[in-house]
Amino acid sequence: MYLTRRAEFSASHYYHDPALSPEENARVFGKCSNLNGHGHNYTLEVTVKGKIDAKTGFVVDLKQLKDIMNREVVDAMDHRHLNKEVPEFAKLVPTTENLAIVCWHRLQPKLKDAELHRVRVYESHDLFADFYGEDQ
Amino acid sequence: MYLTRRAEFSASHYYHDPALSPEENARVFGKCSNLNGHGHNYTLEVTVKGKIDAKTGFVVDLKQLKDIMNREVVDAMDHRHLNKEVPEFAKLVPTTENLAIVCWHRLQPKLKDAELHRVRVYESHDLFADFYGEDQ
Amino acid sequence: MYLTRRAEFSASHYYHDPALSPEENARVFGKCSNLNGHGHNYTLEVTVKGKIDAKTGFVVDLKQLKDIMNREVVDAMDHRHLNKEVPEFAKLVPTTENLAIVCWHRLQPKLKDAELHRVRVYESHDLFADFYGEDQ
Amino acid sequence: MYLTRRAEFSASHYYHDPALSPEENARVFGKCSNLNGHGHNYTLEVTVKGKIDAKTGFVVDLKQLKDIMNREVVDAMDHRHLNKEVPEFAKLVPTTENLAIVCWHRLQPKLKDAELHRVRVYESHDLFADFYGEDQ
Amino acid sequence: MYLTRRAEFSASHYYHDPALSPEENARVFGKCSNLNGHGHNYTLEVTVKGKIDAKTGFVVDLKQLKDIMNREVVDAMDHRHLNKEVPEFAKLVPTTENLAIVCWHRLQPKLKDAELHRVRVYESHDLFADFYGEDQ
Amino acid sequence: MYLTRRAEFSASHYYHDPALSPEENARVFGKCSNLNGHGHNYTLEVTVKGKIDAKTGFVVDLKQLKDIMNREVVDAMDHRHLNKEVPEFAKLVPTTENLAIVCWHRLQPKLKDAELHRVRVYESHDLFADFYGEDQ
Repeated sequence: MYLTRRAEFSASHYYHDPALSPEENARVFGKCSNLNGHGHNYTLEVTVKGKIDAKTGFVVDLKQLKDIMNREVVDAMDHRHLNKEVPEFAKLVPTTENLAIVCWHRLQPKLKDAELHRVRVYESHDLFADFYGEDQ
Repeated sequence: MYLTRRAEFSASHYYHDPALSPEENARVFGKCSNLNGHGHNYTLEVTVKGKIDAKTGFVVDLKQLKDIMNREVVDAMDHRHLNKEVPEFAKLVPTTENLAIVCWHRLQPKLKDAELHRVRVYESHDLFADFYGEDQ
Repeated sequence: MYLTRRAEFSASHYYHDPALSPEENARVFGKCSNLNGHGHNYTLEVTVKGKIDAKTGFVVDLKQLKDIMNREVVDAMDHRHLNKEVPEFAKLVPTTENLAIVCWHRLQPKLKDAELHRVRVYESHDLFADFYGEDQ
Repeated sequence: MYLTRRAEFSASHYYHDPALSPEENARVFGKCSNLNGHGHNYTLEVTVKGKIDAKTGFVVDLKQLKDIMNREVVDAMDHRHLNKEVPEFAKLVPTTENLAIVCWHRLQPKLKDAELHRVRVYESHDLFADFYGEDQ
Repeated sequence: MYLTRRAEFSASHYYHDPALSPEENARVFGKCSNLNGHGHNYTLEVTVKGKIDAKTGFVVDLKQLKDIMNREVVDAMDHRHLNKEVPEFAKLVPTTENLAIVCWHRLQPKLKDAELHRVRVYESHDLFADFYGEDQ
Repeated sequence: MYLTRRAEFSASHYYHDPALSPEENARVFGKCSNLNGHGHNYTLEVTVKGKIDAKTGFVVDLKQLKDIMNREVVDAMDHRHLNKEVPEFAKLVPTTENLAIVCWHRLQPKLKDAELHRVRVYESHDLFADFYGEDQ
């Protein structure tokens, strides 16, 4: 049994590799290389896996899951600049892929009763990344 | 090859464990413990798996699949109170997780030509449960 | 200038006129006449109208608008049974139309800086009611 | 007859009034006052009004409308920082309301065959502003 | 009080003016001039206006409105070729604008208890036409 | 790590087996057997799988992926009649299932840096097919 919950946050970011020249950054990252930053309404989608508790009918306490998602991701990233204010992105390019990995590592240690199965991050309606953990 | 079809229904429910005191029910189930009930526009998403028929190009006869979904789930649950009118929930808490399992067991025996792969139930845009059957 | 903000809540209801026989209620209200109730994920959409404040660029303080919508409507109706728990519906059928009017009368007196222009209530993706106030 | 076309762009912004202290900016603009900026996937919705051309069945040449929307708004704002790269916002707070007005003034002079009726800007699914021009 | 209901249908069409040469048709209508036809999932959105019946809480009997929409539009256009199978388009280009007008004239005479206020037709998420009747 | 990108196209089609009589075609394919054709706004959803490039943070160059999707599928099918203008459907019924397979075979040989994992095609909001390649 898998249960999935969504949350949204709005953030800005840019793509930049300090080892590259401005021209190379523009070639590799296109419009995303603009150092003024641009932004998105991100959707975070967290899937946990587990057995249903026979008493409650829950795989996971939804209130707890929501609190963990808010505390570990939404509060830390909403209305923030990912490159400048989220420590993991001080040196890591905040692509949708890397954002999914960062969210996984923020959420996974906090989940006690259920196993984290997948983190999906939508940058827009038309683009999203799925991460299932390093072991898979 | 996997084919997925959606259907919607509107129902009400509440979460309640008769073995618990009112206070404990409120603590475990929060706002969902209100015995007056509340409701949702549910989305049922049924995925079947199979080989494509070379003549028709179909994995499953969509008309038949739609009829089965309507007869076994939508007609039985739409504009109903899940706890009071759907027999499976007489003693089972109608969480999204349990609803996915109940839909699976209603649909699976009726599907002849294709194998049921997954039942997904959305309680809202932000919350859904996936069930792949007991064997998986 | 018009500004619109949305909020969601989940509630249950039924349609019933005590002056009618059960058969007449069934004929007039169809599936909605089921006294066990059924439910929806409602979307409330509130539009205010006003001049933009030259300093802030706001027609209305969004935080205040959100607080008013939550306090007057969402907190009072979310995870509730409209007929049984929202006083306005003790004798009034909680149709989408009447729900829009009730929300208008709950919100309008609380809005200070901006004029309430329209209340829209979606019962589902496919059905919604718009109310612009009695004077129009 | 009214025809409406949508386009999307991703941008970052912040809300700041240089005449206010940091504390006052934080109080007035909340999370939006973060000078690192944050961002959104904006949706621009442009409605034109006119008579249908009896030959073509069009109120407006859709290709031309799309080109104007792309040139005047999308190309100028997509993957940009509104405060830093869109001249109108050098001193104007880029709220959703002001963004709708700025888009109006960019689009209106370019529309030849049809009259601009409304500019709607969605900052997110839950928040949008409508502008109908100064004369209304 | 305004009530709006949506319905969907899938149809194909092309844009062609027999008075024009193939080259002129291609120039005026672009990709839509392909005589093999192409298609869309259309959404029809019908808004009626009226007083609320004090007994029922309805502006309009929703079952009747749905039946009229299905009979007059959906059954006549769903899984059809608009140019070839819908008589109004034998000589009229089936643009979104003209489709809104045709739907208006099919629906308006059938509505007894409520006044037709607006017909909106979505050709896609990003394009729609609104018609309010000839008198407006 | 999986990355998914969406694109849309509008096309028309019909379902027909020349070995069957008109009556049998009508029975097997229902409304889809109308030889005038009908149409849809299709959504193509392409998922690629791979390791993240440590420098760029990308699994795949999004610009390249978009170009391949446009060139191989969107440009070839948008505003087209699938049966008449897409060679693969000269003899193959263009069901959602077969469309997913055809898109797979058009896209897979063009993807160099990342592995094609899944092609999903939505015919409408309520119906979609997933194809993971012949080997799975």
